[in-house]
Amino acid sequence: MDTRIHDISGVFRQGPADSVGAALAREHPADIAAALEELAPDLAWQTLRQAPRARQARVFGYLDHEFQTLLATITPRADLAAIVMEMHADERADLYKELSDQQRDALMPALAQAEREDIRRLAAYEEGTAGALMTSDYAALPPGLSATEALTVLRREAPDKETIYRTYVIDADRALIGSVRLQDLIAAPARARVADIMETETHAVHVDDEAAEAARRIAHYDMLALPVVDAENRLVGIITHDDALDVMEAEATEDFYLASTVTGLETGLGAATISMLYRARIVWLMLLVFGNIFSGAGIAHFEDTIAAHLPLMFFLPILIASGGNAGSQSATLMIRALATGEIRLSDWGRVLGRELVVAILLGLSMAAAISVIGVFRGGPDIALVIALSMILIVIVGSLIGMLLPFLLSRVNLDPATASTPLVTSIADATGVLIYFSIARAILSLP
Amino acid sequence: MDTRIHDISGVFRQGPADSVGAALAREHPADIAAALEELAPDLAWQTLRQAPRARQARVFGYLDHEFQTLLATITPRADLAAIVMEMHADERADLYKELSDQQRDALMPALAQAEREDIRRLAAYEEGTAGALMTSDYAALPPGLSATEALTVLRREAPDKETIYRTYVIDADRALIGSVRLQDLIAAPARARVADIMETETHAVHVDDEAAEAARRIAHYDMLALPVVDAENRLVGIITHDDALDVMEAEATEDFYLASTVTGLETGLGAATISMLYRARIVWLMLLVFGNIFSGAGIAHFEDTIAAHLPLMFFLPILIASGGNAGSQSATLMIRALATGEIRLSDWGRVLGRELVVAILLGLSMAAAISVIGVFRGGPDIALVIALSMILIVIVGSLIGMLLPFLLSRVNLDPATASTPLVTSIADATGVLIYFSIARAILSLP
Repeated sequence: MDTRIHDISGVFRQGPADSVGAALAREHPADIAAALEELAPDLAWQTLRQAPRARQARVFGYLDHEFQTLLATITPRADLAAIVMEMHADERADLYKELSDQQRDALMPALAQAEREDIRRLAAYEEGTAGALMTSDYAALPPGLSATEALTVLRREAPDKETIYRTYVIDADRALIGSVRLQDLIAAPARARVADIMETETHAVHVDDEAAEAARRIAHYDMLALPVVDAENRLVGIITHDDALDVMEAEATEDFYLASTVTGLETGLGAATISMLYRARIVWLMLLVFGNIFSGAGIAHFEDTIAAHLPLMFFLPILIASGGNAGSQSATLMIRALATGEIRLSDWGRVLGRELVVAILLGLSMAAAISVIGVFRGGPDIALVIALSMILIVIVGSLIGMLLPFLLSRVNLDPATASTPLVTSIADATGVLIYFSIARAILSLP
Repeated sequence: MDTRIHDISGVFRQGPADSVGAALAREHPADIAAALEELAPDLAWQTLRQAPRARQARVFGYLDHEFQTLLATITPRADLAAIVMEMHADERADLYKELSDQQRDALMPALAQAEREDIRRLAAYEEGTAGALMTSDYAALPPGLSATEALTVLRREAPDKETIYRTYVIDADRALIGSVRLQDLIAAPARARVADIMETETHAVHVDDEAAEAARRIAHYDMLALPVVDAENRLVGIITHDDALDVMEAEATEDFYLASTVTGLETGLGAATISMLYRARIVWLMLLVFGNIFSGAGIAHFEDTIAAHLPLMFFLPILIASGGNAGSQSATLMIRALATGEIRLSDWGRVLGRELVVAILLGLSMAAAISVIGVFRGGPDIALVIALSMILIVIVGSLIGMLLPFLLSRVNLDPATASTPLVTSIADATGVLIYFSIARAILSLP
């Protein structure tokens, strides 16, 4: 896909005027947008303005927000207004949210009143809600129409709607009572009433529901579009399947970051500034420094043992890391299982029992491997110390890794919130204590 | 959503016969399937058999594979065959793949020949390819039909097709030449030819292409369905938007595990056996033990320095962990950026420069914090040693974390393949060397 976009950019940059026109007409708006983003904003606008207005609007909707606002500054006001009028309702509300007050003041008077109100209404919903994700370009019908009348209405409205494949049925108060598939309208006898063909709609979300919940519902029910209602059950918008996909992808990225020590980065690495990257990373790094002070204090506490048996130091990184690694494995499995809903809080007894068995098996295997090295480097006493330590450290680390996400969930925190680094840090400190306590006991030191 | 499903299960378990019937008629097949999965297979079948055949097939398609095969064993052969005949082509091919040879031999003779051949053909594609994901229930038209004729064909075929919203246009050799939206067919003048209304189709995938690539294409182009062609450009199937969503979700789980030290676990934690969990974890744990031997060897090499300055040990876990933590942050950011295509291999120069600046800032901040503790615990000399070590360790750790995913990508490995634990392990060993080398130099030891 990448080379295709590079090729289109190349045509835009150097190609003769007629190949530019051909590319604008032939390529998918998503590809045209990606190709424009590789150009300087000036050249991007000089290119895009050669396309018909409706196509300009489609392409504009696919541009990322940063590039949209860049283009909005250099696009002549009348052109920008014409593009915004043609854009999908949800896309232009998103654009509006990105504009500066100055840009908004320049743009809004140039729009028709209906569009102005629609933009203000959609832009008012809080980020992350179903309301902020929905579009107002849905098709709606009263229940009393016949199938033929309904098709006539849809045929007329089709160009302005995001989808007419699912039309919503609303009563005189705009309350949502059902929905009808275009497929069923076409197959129905000409005189059948919409009310008889429609399915009763029971899966609608509320405007204030989480966008992620709306996306999960679309995925669960394999829907093309999900209706959104207000507190009085009035239909106010729809969320389409492609927006659900975008939300799921953003959620996956968020989960990925949450399970790491990078916090609150809302753009990807490519678009982030140095200051954003610094802030996303310094918090956890600092917290973990203070977490690791406990490990350091543990070591300091056992200074005599260490001084008397310096070969113990060789095994310290291995033993500490093994507890942290086993713990982060358990945490990873548990976080994912809780996130996908595969395991519930009430399952903890069963899961704990199985985790214990796995951890004992892992600990025994690791102990066997490490004690071979132990015999060669420190003799049988040291080998015994590190074998016992390894078993205990792996078991304790695994249990910490399993229980921490459960506990976070229990107090209604996202289990992925930094469980892995927290687990590693706690398991590390515990490992130091276990190791040197066993060493002191077995090597019979004061 | 969970409580809703629990409620439906409760009705199935205890409810009077007419509320069971009402739930089977009213609830979404996805919810009925989830509710059945909470019952014993016997009761699940006794419940499901009360639904009309077409609904049984819809629900069956939503059951997870394990439960499907359980039900397939207890469902009477004639019932199972009737259900399979009604299932979507891709879902029944998936079911067929899960059945034992014995179950297949019992089922196949009870099906019509067309279905038998269709199942065998679809089941033959390798797991993870577009072919294995596609369905053969697509609607296709010849280019010469008029809009009215096309609508008549679609009206007749609608009940058997997964979607008629996008119909594919094929020539006499079944080669894909374009596609037409139902919306455009309805809006077109009655005598317009399909060939005049259709869009030329340029986004089709090949049967052997990766399923993940097909899903990405559906997401990128906001498609309802993506056509799949064979080597001769003949249309052989379509992949629908809901299947793309499932693939994206599975990919997100895979990415999540890949970036951790859990390998090759194909089910979630809930369904995994003890032996599966052991195997998924032991490999990395063992590898990392041997990775950490380098850290141990580093410490052993500096035994004299340590013996002479035991307070150095207090700071060892903090310094080692900081390098590993900084490195795993960089790796996390880089892996995600490479996975989402936000950063390309050719960008490495620019990214490296910015990473260096961020790493220097992080290193300076960390050094400032830790040297305060250093002065109190070890005096100014030790404080200088740990401040310098911290700066260098954070910079080196970050660079390792950034470059390793790049290098893995370069040699065509998935950058997520264990970069994070590998980075931590390499950064740890490097940290030991940096710390004690600086200590030896500054504290002027032999």
